[in-house]
Amino acid sequence: MDYERFYSRVGRQVRESAIRRMGAADDDRRDVVSFAPGYPDPTLFPWDDLRDIAGQLLSGQEPSILQYGPPRGLAPLREATVGLLAARGIAVTADELLITTGTQQAVDLLARVLVEPGDVVLTELATFTGSLTAFRNAGAELVGLPVEHDGIDLDALDLAWSCALAGGRPVKLLYLIPNFQNPTGTLLSRDKRARLIAWAEYHDVLIVEDDPYGSLYFDDETAPDTRPLRADCDTGRVIYTSSFSKVLAPGLRVAWVTAPSALIDRLENAKQSADLTCGGLDQHLAYEALRRGVIDRVLPSLRARYRSKRDIMEAAMCREIGERLAWGSPRGGFFIWARLPHGCMDVELLTRAQAEGVTFVVGSAFHVDGSGHDTIRLSFSEPSADRIDEGIRRLSRALTPAAAGS
Amino acid sequence: MDYERFYSRVGRQVRESAIRRMGAADDDRRDVVSFAPGYPDPTLFPWDDLRDIAGQLLSGQEPSILQYGPPRGLAPLREATVGLLAARGIAVTADELLITTGTQQAVDLLARVLVEPGDVVLTELATFTGSLTAFRNAGAELVGLPVEHDGIDLDALDLAWSCALAGGRPVKLLYLIPNFQNPTGTLLSRDKRARLIAWAEYHDVLIVEDDPYGSLYFDDETAPDTRPLRADCDTGRVIYTSSFSKVLAPGLRVAWVTAPSALIDRLENAKQSADLTCGGLDQHLAYEALRRGVIDRVLPSLRARYRSKRDIMEAAMCREIGERLAWGSPRGGFFIWARLPHGCMDVELLTRAQAEGVTFVVGSAFHVDGSGHDTIRLSFSEPSADRIDEGIRRLSRALTPAAAGS
Repeated sequence: MDYERFYSRVGRQVRESAIRRMGAADDDRRDVVSFAPGYPDPTLFPWDDLRDIAGQLLSGQEPSILQYGPPRGLAPLREATVGLLAARGIAVTADELLITTGTQQAVDLLARVLVEPGDVVLTELATFTGSLTAFRNAGAELVGLPVEHDGIDLDALDLAWSCALAGGRPVKLLYLIPNFQNPTGTLLSRDKRARLIAWAEYHDVLIVEDDPYGSLYFDDETAPDTRPLRADCDTGRVIYTSSFSKVLAPGLRVAWVTAPSALIDRLENAKQSADLTCGGLDQHLAYEALRRGVIDRVLPSLRARYRSKRDIMEAAMCREIGERLAWGSPRGGFFIWARLPHGCMDVELLTRAQAEGVTFVVGSAFHVDGSGHDTIRLSFSEPSADRIDEGIRRLSRALTPAAAGS
Repeated sequence: MDYERFYSRVGRQVRESAIRRMGAADDDRRDVVSFAPGYPDPTLFPWDDLRDIAGQLLSGQEPSILQYGPPRGLAPLREATVGLLAARGIAVTADELLITTGTQQAVDLLARVLVEPGDVVLTELATFTGSLTAFRNAGAELVGLPVEHDGIDLDALDLAWSCALAGGRPVKLLYLIPNFQNPTGTLLSRDKRARLIAWAEYHDVLIVEDDPYGSLYFDDETAPDTRPLRADCDTGRVIYTSSFSKVLAPGLRVAWVTAPSALIDRLENAKQSADLTCGGLDQHLAYEALRRGVIDRVLPSLRARYRSKRDIMEAAMCREIGERLAWGSPRGGFFIWARLPHGCMDVELLTRAQAEGVTFVVGSAFHVDGSGHDTIRLSFSEPSADRIDEGIRRLSRALTPAAAGS
């Protein structure tokens, strides 16, 4: 049976994500080194703590652990998350929080509740593909803004706003990943953070601040620079979302979004329609990990290990690839964003790289306007040190013809 | 800050679910007996098995358990679900399955991928509110069809189809809960199942068959009557969704939808945008519970215990309430659907019932056309025998004034 005649706009437009396509390639070849998905390193998950906690939770003493729960999320987890946010400078109450199935769901719910087909949404030019898809599925007209070394280009922002207004569709929303941005690794400067808040207030635009990597800075002096925009904006203008996926484990699918309670009420309703509630066991595991200080205890080692992996990848790139790639060293997070030599296309390089046994995500996948073919994203977070070295050697071999041809 | 000017159509229309409102009432009064939510009995969850399995899974030997996983779902779980479906008479391959975050997500994804704003979707008149909301959020024009003792009224179905066509909007989809329907408890007859398949083929309408309760029949002779429509329709016309929530535990949020792989591809893409992937630990727990035969082992006791609870509730209703309520005895599932005495309104009864310390869901909440104020849904699945007795005594007191006034 042919379903074509039954599909909605969303059904017709859904496309296979570039990241998933890379993931599929992995399955086909077991020895491949994957720099593609932004996966955390599973050897850093607090397995022992989680096993102990799970053993206690599943004693059967507390029925709610495996029962349906409130759509807004487990109450003690919301309370504990309030504390975690306070440590980031964000003062909210539990009423202003919704627990979500990953930040992916937070962005998707925001898109559904806020974006009407045709609404203009601004993003960084090069941003997380999952968010692009969520906004696209809501019918957003996406406009990408160039990212400079210190974050989004504010002149381009003004211009995009004026163009949208002139086109009769004022900008509704600006989506940002200020800390160690996915995919560029950029840290938005403190000056630009302040100016973006003022800009959004003046132009009556909402900001969605997506912050999965903020805690994963590589040097303590960087920490103050990761202060969320939301910490300095109490008007409801900035909606903030973050997750336990990168500081605990993504398989638990526990994240949250904070906004004024009126908006949280709408998001909660949309969540109820999307999947009723988050997993009870997952939420209790995240809550207990917070309450027992597991996350606080593991964070310093996560920072040290991911910094070490960044160093290993950069050293290998310097040694094996040299000036054939250009990149800025990320001060946190999971990603190195590299510019290709003149005349080298991301998709062609990927084909050669896969033949050599290494994958990454093509830069163009992150560009809403189809540009970015001279860039690639390399994730250093998951592979071991040896595999990083091996993968970069393979990437170097894949790059050779392009370098020769340029 | 006032968000009103920012909301999309979905954001403006989301409403607080009646079930959630009942749930909130529970929180306010601790001694309340709740017949409101369709929760399974947590004392029947296989706690010991799940604790053992979780202890083994969290040994740290298998990184994928807490890692991001494939959007389509854990491969061994999909394979095992194929086997579970075969036992229900449904022959599919793992390619034709998507693991979802509850059947709520399956229905929501189907609504997003198939329903364009204005499309006509037919439902039973009195159906699961969560599905109504999902279709409404997709912009469906919902038309409810009366339910007879043996299921949906086929004459009304023909009429609704003709009316929709005459209005220039042919019916796209029929949403059904054939087994122990929520909220009416109705079992769709075998004759009507066959006629509905033929009807859908002839009129080129898709059927979404939602089957959370099919395994929870109360007498073995009922089992053949629960055979899914999908088992007798291999054309792709019937899309089937079911869950581990009622046979294992809902806190795991693991369900599935089966359809031809072309449609599953679209649903998978939509899922990736909705929440990337289901929980890794939850999926592994469900898989191991299937593989080790835990579900097969607990099913007979679930059937016996829920049947016993139905009997206890009906006995209490006969004893305490008598002819002031009329109901049909359900042959499986979680719900008794009761008709109120003449002149008694569901919402007014609920107010009095809450004052007496008992809650239920008003029948009108399940009616897409706002009717049904002479009905209520009583869930017997979660409360203990004593609490069922106590709750029905309280309900009887709440009913008295209405009975006197009628």
